[in-house]
Amino acid sequence: MKKLLYQLDTDPQASVFDNVVAYDGGADHVTAFADCHEEMITPLVEGAIFTRSGTNKKNTALFVGGSNIAAGDKLFYAIQNNFFDSFRVSIMLDSNGCNTTAAAAVASILKSGDISGKNAVILAGTGPVGGRAAVIMAKLGAYVTISSRGMERSQQACDYLNDRFGVEIKPQEAKTNKNRAELVENAHIVLATGAAGVTLLEEDNWKDNPNIEILVDANAVPPVGIKGIKMTDKGESRHGKVTWGSVGFGPLKIALQRKCIGRLFEQNDLVLDVDEIFSMAREMV
Amino acid sequence: MKKLLYQLDTDPQASVFDNVVAYDGGADHVTAFADCHEEMITPLVEGAIFTRSGTNKKNTALFVGGSNIAAGDKLFYAIQNNFFDSFRVSIMLDSNGCNTTAAAAVASILKSGDISGKNAVILAGTGPVGGRAAVIMAKLGAYVTISSRGMERSQQACDYLNDRFGVEIKPQEAKTNKNRAELVENAHIVLATGAAGVTLLEEDNWKDNPNIEILVDANAVPPVGIKGIKMTDKGESRHGKVTWGSVGFGPLKIALQRKCIGRLFEQNDLVLDVDEIFSMAREMV
Amino acid sequence: MKKLLYQLDTDPQASVFDNVVAYDGGADHVTAFADCHEEMITPLVEGAIFTRSGTNKKNTALFVGGSNIAAGDKLFYAIQNNFFDSFRVSIMLDSNGCNTTAAAAVASILKSGDISGKNAVILAGTGPVGGRAAVIMAKLGAYVTISSRGMERSQQACDYLNDRFGVEIKPQEAKTNKNRAELVENAHIVLATGAAGVTLLEEDNWKDNPNIEILVDANAVPPVGIKGIKMTDKGESRHGKVTWGSVGFGPLKIALQRKCIGRLFEQNDLVLDVDEIFSMAREMV
Repeated sequence: MKKLLYQLDTDPQASVFDNVVAYDGGADHVTAFADCHEEMITPLVEGAIFTRSGTNKKNTALFVGGSNIAAGDKLFYAIQNNFFDSFRVSIMLDSNGCNTTAAAAVASILKSGDISGKNAVILAGTGPVGGRAAVIMAKLGAYVTISSRGMERSQQACDYLNDRFGVEIKPQEAKTNKNRAELVENAHIVLATGAAGVTLLEEDNWKDNPNIEILVDANAVPPVGIKGIKMTDKGESRHGKVTWGSVGFGPLKIALQRKCIGRLFEQNDLVLDVDEIFSMAREMV
Repeated sequence: MKKLLYQLDTDPQASVFDNVVAYDGGADHVTAFADCHEEMITPLVEGAIFTRSGTNKKNTALFVGGSNIAAGDKLFYAIQNNFFDSFRVSIMLDSNGCNTTAAAAVASILKSGDISGKNAVILAGTGPVGGRAAVIMAKLGAYVTISSRGMERSQQACDYLNDRFGVEIKPQEAKTNKNRAELVENAHIVLATGAAGVTLLEEDNWKDNPNIEILVDANAVPPVGIKGIKMTDKGESRHGKVTWGSVGFGPLKIALQRKCIGRLFEQNDLVLDVDEIFSMAREMV
Repeated sequence: MKKLLYQLDTDPQASVFDNVVAYDGGADHVTAFADCHEEMITPLVEGAIFTRSGTNKKNTALFVGGSNIAAGDKLFYAIQNNFFDSFRVSIMLDSNGCNTTAAAAVASILKSGDISGKNAVILAGTGPVGGRAAVIMAKLGAYVTISSRGMERSQQACDYLNDRFGVEIKPQEAKTNKNRAELVENAHIVLATGAAGVTLLEEDNWKDNPNIEILVDANAVPPVGIKGIKMTDKGESRHGKVTWGSVGFGPLKIALQRKCIGRLFEQNDLVLDVDEIFSMAREMV
């Protein structure tokens, strides 16, 4: 019986990234739906849960993706609300790669040791990846701040995360590289999750900072957001700090996303969100 | 050469149910198109009939689905109007599972014996499944009535079916459970095809009725529409009547739909609509 | 690792023709996107180039199709603008089958010998197939004219082709069969690429013409555009001229399109447009 993955994407076009990785993770067929939202989900879920019986049910699974994590979160819960008794299939949430990218980034950070009690700043961190990385680090005992160009946006992101995950992430406005340099003054860990093509820190903003131990830049398209780091950095030592670029921890992210897909087909009631995915990442490092 | 099924759905999103079953029925790849309508069908059909030659043509097939059977009917004929000479592929109509569900329900009813001359009432029967079940039973010689909350809707449904299939199905208005209890007073067979969550008959409305021999409830999502029947009923005896629930005849419905898909790829000119699909169901019981 | 083809179609519905041929050409999975345009292409391309590494990258490829070649051309370049360094995958342009159909038609014409210095008229030639055939023949040294019912449309088509490909194709208005008969008076080669059901030349318009050596009708749906030719003509001799119908050179067109798809997966940096595709056609004749 074929392993069928339904890729439910909240964007107007379904992610090709997720599609390719789903095949590489072991799905026999991936069928993508774009523009997915709560109201349309019932017949879709019924199609997944009513068509195969008994142990065959584990061969159908659902993946929620798209660039908007709030929309993805909603969809993820709406789907689960349609499950009942044994009528359920495994499901994974990874809007914009948020869980797998964040898990891979933090698992890479942990290679340098425990982060409990450390200060972590996530620059341009209001997006899905920044948010999930913040949650993971906060749960590991770090003091996490999310910066954004506007206070309102940062506050909203933190409120959402603190409310949903029961953590205490602090918002911070930082409009300029100078603002950001001040913000990371007492940070031990700096993670940049900004948009392509935007410089968030110059090399001078961090190279002489005595507190910073680790810098990670999640940007996958050159140029990087933190100058002085290379995309290929994989735990490099630069100015006495450990540096990671997206190409450095990218293979872990992709291997993790593939592994998650594979797991979906091992049982019919797996729910993969940030905690489960980060656990898997730690096992893989 | 791969068996390619094109799933042409008249709804804004293609049915996952049909998609899964198509894979399980033997299609190597299922490509779904949503929002299908007559005007867009020509290039689509040309793509199906011009790309493979000779005996390879049987490896391409078309499936028409979606919740609207009138739209499905139109599309089904429009597609066939684009076929010519040997430039044709096999095609199946099963909007909302109407043909396979109705065929499986009636084939289950027939396990208790011939229905010629019997009175059959289809409660909330104006939808695709109710309509197809009505046609099948009428062709088997039963006197069939379709009820609906409004007379106009019931009349329209019957006119459409009588006109298209040359049968004589009678419309009936039945707004309340009491109305429906009166309506089934002289019925031998009662089939409920209403929407999820709507009660059509209380147990008291049928348990002491001396005429009713068989009750079938096609509702796949609890609660059932006829109280006193269980979804898992599979020819149970309740109050001296034979009862069937959707989980009881569901495996036949799914096995039938899979078998239909498999048949599509055995030749390049099969047309599967209600008659052919019901014939297959009878062979399987 | 599975060979994944992303079929990017500029039309509101993706071509089933291209979809089937892509499977037959060796793609393990074809995922179609409709309504593709420049603005949406970046995340899509990133999904293709970032998900597989090293020699595995050649297992992902992109195909641009749709009925509008100008839109296809734009998309084709926009995609390539997102490639950098080794982050690229193979890509093919074949809007409306323009390159493969034109290449197969001209390769068939060449079976009768060199066309350098010959006069070639493409009737109703402003579409994708007519345009690409014009370019191929012009590059082979023929004097090519494209006719259309309106001068403006013909002029636009020629301007576009001459500008993009550095050729010198001449526009011509020809509203009636009589106009077209006059237009082909001095032609050695006549190719018809009009819409289904439109007669472009009567048999009397060409049968006694002493100059015409070859007539090709690319219309795949009967009736043909040039009366006196049959769709099945495969280098037939009629009234002393060599004639080709769509069914005659169709197998070459389809074999060529399949072969192109296969080639995409042999390396990760192949770019298949008119020149490369015509070269492949010549090898196959």
